[in-house]
Amino acid sequence: MSSAHESSAKRSGRRPGPTTTREAITDAARRQFAELGYDRATMRGIASEAGVDPALVVRFYGSKDALFREVMALPPAVADRFAAIADGPTETVGRRLAEVVVGMLEDPRSRSIVLGRIRSASSHPDAAALVRETVTRDVGRFVAAVTEDEPEKRAVLVGSQVVGLALARHVVQVEPLASLPARDVIDYIAPVLQHYLIEPLR
Amino acid sequence: MSSAHESSAKRSGRRPGPTTTREAITDAARRQFAELGYDRATMRGIASEAGVDPALVVRFYGSKDALFREVMALPPAVADRFAAIADGPTETVGRRLAEVVVGMLEDPRSRSIVLGRIRSASSHPDAAALVRETVTRDVGRFVAAVTEDEPEKRAVLVGSQVVGLALARHVVQVEPLASLPARDVIDYIAPVLQHYLIEPLR
Repeated sequence: MSSAHESSAKRSGRRPGPTTTREAITDAARRQFAELGYDRATMRGIASEAGVDPALVVRFYGSKDALFREVMALPPAVADRFAAIADGPTETVGRRLAEVVVGMLEDPRSRSIVLGRIRSASSHPDAAALVRETVTRDVGRFVAAVTEDEPEKRAVLVGSQVVGLALARHVVQVEPLASLPARDVIDYIAPVLQHYLIEPLR
Repeated sequence: MSSAHESSAKRSGRRPGPTTTREAITDAARRQFAELGYDRATMRGIASEAGVDPALVVRFYGSKDALFREVMALPPAVADRFAAIADGPTETVGRRLAEVVVGMLEDPRSRSIVLGRIRSASSHPDAAALVRETVTRDVGRFVAAVTEDEPEKRAVLVGSQVVGLALARHVVQVEPLASLPARDVIDYIAPVLQHYLIEPLR
């Protein structure tokens, strides 16, 4: 973020400052990837929503792939919250993870990132590869800090429940899950995440 | 299967017998819904893959919506297996459910149904409505036979884990989950399904 601000300060000319332009592009991209998925989102459509020339999107980001990677990174605040889960008593780590995950899905901006990844992964193999990579990185790093017992398996098991929750509650919106208060969802999934993180896997 | 062969044997004339034609259409539809999702699958594309005139698909099924409902129903054998889960000791019901779910995802035909529902749900609101309805019906019925304690909530929580497993293992194919033997996956998710089905929810 700070490098974007610095480089915008250096810019001048007819266009709005590139940070504003970049924000308009990344906001539009995030929304379109979340609602349409990687496959159906287009550089042209994203440029149109952002009110800029498609050539500018290409100049800034190079490719749809690169743009997807840029906007589908978790916000630093969420990444920090994930990293902090490992600090604290082991017997409540599942609840701390549940709080971060549910909080991430309640916030419209980070929710659109999570849903963008899921929608894209299920519509396009390249996007699935990006999602694999990011899930492994974001979840894997934190799980490795929590346990040395099969952290890779535990990370994908956690990921499977998180992805399923996001899909069932926010995409398919199955009731009564879709209308439950966040607090209740945390209560319901915390024991499952605790199991996947800490308890013997079988 | 046997009734399909019998009725096709009775037919003659210019077209292949309607059961065979129906099978070709439903096979093509199932594959296209699973790979493309509801939104991108077309009556024309399905007809083309089945080698029939699009008008015939419309005459048999009426609409894409009706065709989706027809081919996305779980095969009777799978539905029977779900119904049988409620029979047997309560303390192992989670494992029995895990065996049915993982078995359903290992079989190419029922897997394509599950993935078709998931891909469609995340690309189209109408498909999401169909998925909500079928998840609630297929899972809800069995859970209600297992417990009287908040069966609707338990059914969607089970559904969230099943959907997340299908997505992570078979769509996104995150390792090491994608390569695990079915036996291991059953071991890993059985305690979670047991929790959602039987244990106090909080």
